[in-house]
Amino acid sequence: MTGLAKRDPDDKADVAGEKTVGAQNCNVALLGFGTVGSSVARILCERSNTHLRLTHVLNRNVARKKVDWLPSSVKWTESIDDVLSSDVEIVVEVMGGLQPTEDWIRRALASGKSVVTANKQLIARCGPELISLARQMNQQIEFGASVAGGVPVISGLHEGLAGDDLFKIRGILNGTCNYILSQIEANGIPFATALREAQKLGFAEADPTEDIEGLDARAKLAILARVGLHCNVGAESIMARSIAPMDNVDFEYANQLGCTIRQISWAELTVESKGDYLFAAVQPALVELSSPLARVAGSQNLVVATGTYGGETVFGGHGAGGNPTAVAVVSDILAIARSKQSAVRMTIPITDAGRPVQKSPTVTTDFTAKHYLRFLVKDRPGIIATLATMLSQCGINIDSVLQKPGCPKTHLPFLITLEECKASLVEQALQKINSLDFLVQPCLHMPIL
Amino acid sequence: MTGLAKRDPDDKADVAGEKTVGAQNCNVALLGFGTVGSSVARILCERSNTHLRLTHVLNRNVARKKVDWLPSSVKWTESIDDVLSSDVEIVVEVMGGLQPTEDWIRRALASGKSVVTANKQLIARCGPELISLARQMNQQIEFGASVAGGVPVISGLHEGLAGDDLFKIRGILNGTCNYILSQIEANGIPFATALREAQKLGFAEADPTEDIEGLDARAKLAILARVGLHCNVGAESIMARSIAPMDNVDFEYANQLGCTIRQISWAELTVESKGDYLFAAVQPALVELSSPLARVAGSQNLVVATGTYGGETVFGGHGAGGNPTAVAVVSDILAIARSKQSAVRMTIPITDAGRPVQKSPTVTTDFTAKHYLRFLVKDRPGIIATLATMLSQCGINIDSVLQKPGCPKTHLPFLITLEECKASLVEQALQKINSLDFLVQPCLHMPIL
Repeated sequence: MTGLAKRDPDDKADVAGEKTVGAQNCNVALLGFGTVGSSVARILCERSNTHLRLTHVLNRNVARKKVDWLPSSVKWTESIDDVLSSDVEIVVEVMGGLQPTEDWIRRALASGKSVVTANKQLIARCGPELISLARQMNQQIEFGASVAGGVPVISGLHEGLAGDDLFKIRGILNGTCNYILSQIEANGIPFATALREAQKLGFAEADPTEDIEGLDARAKLAILARVGLHCNVGAESIMARSIAPMDNVDFEYANQLGCTIRQISWAELTVESKGDYLFAAVQPALVELSSPLARVAGSQNLVVATGTYGGETVFGGHGAGGNPTAVAVVSDILAIARSKQSAVRMTIPITDAGRPVQKSPTVTTDFTAKHYLRFLVKDRPGIIATLATMLSQCGINIDSVLQKPGCPKTHLPFLITLEECKASLVEQALQKINSLDFLVQPCLHMPIL
Repeated sequence: MTGLAKRDPDDKADVAGEKTVGAQNCNVALLGFGTVGSSVARILCERSNTHLRLTHVLNRNVARKKVDWLPSSVKWTESIDDVLSSDVEIVVEVMGGLQPTEDWIRRALASGKSVVTANKQLIARCGPELISLARQMNQQIEFGASVAGGVPVISGLHEGLAGDDLFKIRGILNGTCNYILSQIEANGIPFATALREAQKLGFAEADPTEDIEGLDARAKLAILARVGLHCNVGAESIMARSIAPMDNVDFEYANQLGCTIRQISWAELTVESKGDYLFAAVQPALVELSSPLARVAGSQNLVVATGTYGGETVFGGHGAGGNPTAVAVVSDILAIARSKQSAVRMTIPITDAGRPVQKSPTVTTDFTAKHYLRFLVKDRPGIIATLATMLSQCGINIDSVLQKPGCPKTHLPFLITLEECKASLVEQALQKINSLDFLVQPCLHMPIL
C-alpha cells in the first residue's frame, strides 16, 4: 500500500556475494509472444517511470513473431537457455500449457530468477511445489493473472483481505460460459446456437470442452481456495458440471423465480470439531437477479469473497483478453521488482510468517440449497403425482410446480422447485426418477443460490 | 500475493545496531478503543496463526473502556508516552480527528514505529508528509481503512492494478448518502424524512454536514486520486455539492430516464500537451440503472477504476462499520509485519522505485456530460419557451422535456435534459435563469453519467 517504505540497503554493494538489484533496472524475459505476451511487451514499452527492462522474448518460430515496435536491444530467441544464462531477474511465462512450461519455470527458479505466470492449469496443479521451490531459491513466483485476468482478486484476497477470516468464495470465473449464458438469456436462443455464435466471435474455442464442462473454472477455483481459504485442494477433486444442458426454457423459468442462470464457482469452508470440510464445485446455478453475480455481463468476471468480519467483498472486471491479463502480469512483475529491491541478500528462508497455515480439508461435493428440477416429459396424467410421491419418499419437500403453457405434449418442459435440502438427497431421488419412462431426457437439476 | 518469498535474514542478529523483528512476534498498540478499535482488538485476539501481539490500548477515560476479553498482558493507558517508550513496532490509530492524532502519529514515526491509520481527513490533509517522514525513519504508514472501510481498494489500486495506467476513478464512497438516497428511491419519501430515519438508525450523525455536503467523500477521493492516479490534490480543491436538494420527484424523473441518483465521487486525469488536468468532484448525479454504481445498496461502497489497458475494474463491499473497517486495519498491520520481516536493517531511504512520479495537475471542476435540470415553477404560459431561448442563447441544446402530470400549478416540477455540454456553460446559463420570477427555487442540476 502507499506508505511502503521499502528500500534498497545499498544499490551497489554485494556483501554476501549475491546479486543485488539496482533501483533503476530490473531485467525481464517474456516466454510466449501471443495475445497476452505482446500486450505485456507493449505495456512495458509504453509505460514511463518504470525501472523494468524487457531484454528477452522467447517464442517458437521467433522470426515470424518479431515486431518492429520493441527496442532493438530486446533479444529474440527460441532457446530457454539463452534466457536462463542471461542476467534476467524476472521470467514471465505466458505460453500456457503444462510442458515444457513446468520444466522451464522450475529451471528459471533454480537459476535464481523469479517467475510471473498466467498459467492457471499449472498453478492449480503444482502451485505449492513451485512456491516452495521459489522460497528455497530465495525467489518469488506470482500468478495474479491466472485467475480472472485483469481483476486483482488474487492480491485482493491475499493482501487486501488478509485481515479477515474468509470462509466462502463465489464467482464467475469463466467468461466464455458467462457470454454463452448471457446470450441465451438475452436472445432466447438454444445453447447450441449461442455456442456457435460465441465461437464465431472468438469468445469460445473450437473445442469448448474446458470452458463448457467447468474444467477451466475449477482450476481457477482451486487457486482461489488456496489463496483465500488457505485450503489445499486439487482441481480434479472439485465437482464440475456442464452448462451444455441449459435451454432457453430454463431462463424463462429462472426469470419467473426472480433469477437468472450463471456458471458459479463456489468454494466454502466449514470448520467442525471432526475436521475441516471444503465444499467446492463449478456448476450452473440459479442466482437472484438482485445478486451481483446475476449482473455480470458478457465475458466479465466477478468474485464475491465472504469473511467472518468483513462480510461480502466484490471484485469485478475483465476476466480475459490480452490487455487486462497483461495488467495483472505487469502488476506482478512490479511487485517482485519492489520486493527484490528490499529483499536483497537474504539467505535464510523462513515460512510465510503470520500467514494462516494451509489446511488440507476433506473435499465434499454435497451442499444444502433450494433446488431447481426441470423435466422434459411425454405428457400423460399422473406425472406430477408420481414425481411428488418419489420425492417425498426421499424426504424432499416440493416448494413449487411451474408449467409454461403452449408446449408440445410430446416434449413438455416443466419445473419443480424444492425446499432447502442436501444435494446428495436430490441426486439419490433423481437416480430413481431418471429411469421413469415418461422422461424424454434426464432431469436437469441446479441449486438456487 | 501468494508467492511472496520474503524472509528475515537473521532473526536474532542485530548487525547494524537496529531493531530486528522476530518472525514470531510483532507488538501492536491501539490508539482508540471505540467501534473500530475494539473490533481490531477482537480480530487480533481471535485470529490464530498470527504473530501479532496487542500490547497497548490507549483511550481517554481508559478505566471506563476496559474489557475483560483482552489478555491481561495488554497495558491500558491514557498516555501516548507509555506507547512511544515501549517496544511496540506498529501503532494503530483509530481515534479519528486531526489533533492530537497528527502529533501522535508524527511522534510514533519519529520513534521508529510504523503506523496504521483509518483517518481519512488526516491522510487527505497530510498523507504525503507523513509518508515522507515514515520513509526518513525507515518505517511505513498504511491507510487502507481510510477509504471505503473493508473494501480493499487502496491496495487494489496500488498493488493489484499497478500494471495499468489508471485515468479515471468513480465511486460511491459515503454510505450515509447512499443509504439516504436509496431510501428516498425505495420509499418515495422526502429527503428530510430519509435523513431523520438514517439518524434514528445510526446511519447518519446528529450533524450530518460532512456526509451530506460531500466533505467526507472528497477527503476519500483525494486519497484515491493520489494512490490510483498519482495526483496530488488537496481535498479542499475538490468540488463538493450537497445531496440535500434531492427530492423524490427527482427519482421519478431519473427512473423515466432509465437512471437513479447517487452521490458520485469522480476523479479523472487528462494529460494534454499544455499539462495535466484533474477533474475532481463529489456530487449527486444520474447513473444508468444498468451501471454497477446504480446497484449499490444501502450503506455499501463501490469503486470503479478505469485504466488504459485493463478497462473497468470494480471493488465493492462494506464501506463502514467496526468489523469491515477493522479488517482493513488488520490487513495493513499484517502487510507491515511481513515487510518488517524482510526489510530489517535498511538505512538508506530511496524513492519508491518503479512507481509513477506523483503529478501535481491543475485541478478543474469543469466537465462535459449530459445534464439534468429540474425546475420548480409557478406555472404560467411560455415558461418552456423562455427557458429554451435562454439555453440556446448559451449554445446549449435541449435533449428532452418531461413533466409529471397531476402536480400543483404553484409548485410545478418539470425536467429539461441537455445534450452533452460543459458544466461551466450550464452554470453560466443557470445564473441568468435562476433570477427568473417564475422559479419557486433555484434550478437543481446534475450530470447524467
